[in-house]
Amino acid sequence: MIRAYATSAPAAPLEPFTYEPGPLGHDEVDIRVTACGICHSDLSMVNNEWGISQYPLVPGHEVAGIVHAVGEQVSHLKVGDRVGLGWHASYCMHCPQCMSGHHNLCSQSQATIVGRHGGFAERVRAQAASVVPIPDGVDLLDAGPLFCGGVTVFTPLLQHQIRPVDRVGIVGVGGLGHLAVQFARAWGCEVVAFTSNPDKASSLQQLGAHHVVSSVDPAALEAWQGRLDLIIVTANVALDWAAYIQCLSPRGKLHFVGAVLEPVEIAAFDLIGGQKAVAGSPVGSPETIRTMLAFAARHKIKPVIEVFPMSQVNDALAHLAAGKARYRVVLESDFA
Amino acid sequence: MIRAYATSAPAAPLEPFTYEPGPLGHDEVDIRVTACGICHSDLSMVNNEWGISQYPLVPGHEVAGIVHAVGEQVSHLKVGDRVGLGWHASYCMHCPQCMSGHHNLCSQSQATIVGRHGGFAERVRAQAASVVPIPDGVDLLDAGPLFCGGVTVFTPLLQHQIRPVDRVGIVGVGGLGHLAVQFARAWGCEVVAFTSNPDKASSLQQLGAHHVVSSVDPAALEAWQGRLDLIIVTANVALDWAAYIQCLSPRGKLHFVGAVLEPVEIAAFDLIGGQKAVAGSPVGSPETIRTMLAFAARHKIKPVIEVFPMSQVNDALAHLAAGKARYRVVLESDFA
Repeated sequence: MIRAYATSAPAAPLEPFTYEPGPLGHDEVDIRVTACGICHSDLSMVNNEWGISQYPLVPGHEVAGIVHAVGEQVSHLKVGDRVGLGWHASYCMHCPQCMSGHHNLCSQSQATIVGRHGGFAERVRAQAASVVPIPDGVDLLDAGPLFCGGVTVFTPLLQHQIRPVDRVGIVGVGGLGHLAVQFARAWGCEVVAFTSNPDKASSLQQLGAHHVVSSVDPAALEAWQGRLDLIIVTANVALDWAAYIQCLSPRGKLHFVGAVLEPVEIAAFDLIGGQKAVAGSPVGSPETIRTMLAFAARHKIKPVIEVFPMSQVNDALAHLAAGKARYRVVLESDFA
Repeated sequence: MIRAYATSAPAAPLEPFTYEPGPLGHDEVDIRVTACGICHSDLSMVNNEWGISQYPLVPGHEVAGIVHAVGEQVSHLKVGDRVGLGWHASYCMHCPQCMSGHHNLCSQSQATIVGRHGGFAERVRAQAASVVPIPDGVDLLDAGPLFCGGVTVFTPLLQHQIRPVDRVGIVGVGGLGHLAVQFARAWGCEVVAFTSNPDKASSLQQLGAHHVVSSVDPAALEAWQGRLDLIIVTANVALDWAAYIQCLSPRGKLHFVGAVLEPVEIAAFDLIGGQKAVAGSPVGSPETIRTMLAFAARHKIKPVIEVFPMSQVNDALAHLAAGKARYRVVLESDFA
């Protein structure tokens, strides 16, 4: 029996919940959760904003913990290992995407909290391939947010082969964006943070932003015209995308990782003239997570966190929903 | 004095026109025009569709001819050389784009027919850097369309590092698209031509398309879901872009080279899930033109042309405007 916190209907409060996980699969790992970050998509799933939620729903897909048991075919992890689990808890392991290292694009992948029970729990299970060891030097309280928020903003740096001589803009500086600022800074880039909240300026500079620019001031954006090689959009609200495309240098990319629900309207001419692109990506593969963790450990990159006991999960969710998180809320397991 | 054909007002017929080009610049080349292709953008400029036309306007930016004179600092071209000239007739030669080989993205570049007189003429002048030798084996009547239409569809294959094992779709198969089909086929790719005109099917197969698919049939598009690594859009009308994004494989790109004037509406989610991108590019740099010409010569790629004497330029323009061109109209100089 696994003790957890679940919501039984859209937007309902989470309540104590237990479930029987059944026998451990040959290729599965059972993780004792030390801490679990709260991602904005946990809120979206609790509220069924994407229409794919199944109830009772145990959220939580930024898991850090200790291996409690391994299936008999699991050879690369053992009981007692420090590990984490992100958005995906299972891959098909045989499609062209899985077979070429792009597991995060596997069409048969299973999300940790879609049709499965997630990490707001004392334990969580996942296919071993989706579980990644946490390197020395990364604290378990800090590690969880790297497994979803962290790898989501790390992936575009790899994908677009960003170089340390490039300029990188980060639009929307919350749970994902504050990690993006740190990764881009450690990457060697000139880093521009775009935020609608001027109160964040000094903390963003401490995190590594060379410049903090208002995301909603047309004149401020205009000053950056033609200057950014990559803009990572972590915001999930509609902004003046044409103005951001103007901020791209020739061959620059505007890259979405935030689930902006309103359609993005683009003039083909705006892309053609400067050989620009609008792109997107979801989380990252296990191998990208491993690479990202090693980079984070080497550069001492970690989320700025606010820790709540897991038993206060509803307070923690309300704090995030109110836009008050600075910058990532983490639940620390307090199961007796 | 240079004899040419010019239009004196938007959409007015072209008439004989002469102008005094002045002394030849130190870095300029004077080309005797043998033939000049007609690009759809010549029509757009005649009609001032983009609001940048200056009259009298001598169209023509798919020039093939013979070097007639060179400025005193020109060392890589000499009188008698077979050369061509495309969309750009001048670059600043010192900005970061020029200095890194991306002259086609130079913000100070001059278009051959914007504020300059183009190739519907007995001679045309251009900065030597924008003039590229035509290799043996490429006929002067065929060469012109490669300098604009050809390089425009060749550039995305290079830019996206397309591999011979990839699948490439071409949307809109006219002057640009029929060259794109040939380039993609010679590149080694599986080639899918999307056209609204079923009458073109057999000629497209002869040009190298493995599959010819209706561009306006939702069921036909659905059969290609998730299968194309690159789609080059040469059409300049609004289509169901979401359906084409669905046709992309994971990590696929939808690439615009056609000047679609209606905004392109994209759901960020459609890009994020499959790590896809929407991109664009304009013509190509002189070095890309040189590379493209060598590739075209080696693979015997040439436009399918309809030749009109230059003195019948208005008939030729009307033929193109009526959508009757199969596939590129070329004017052959017949100045006495």
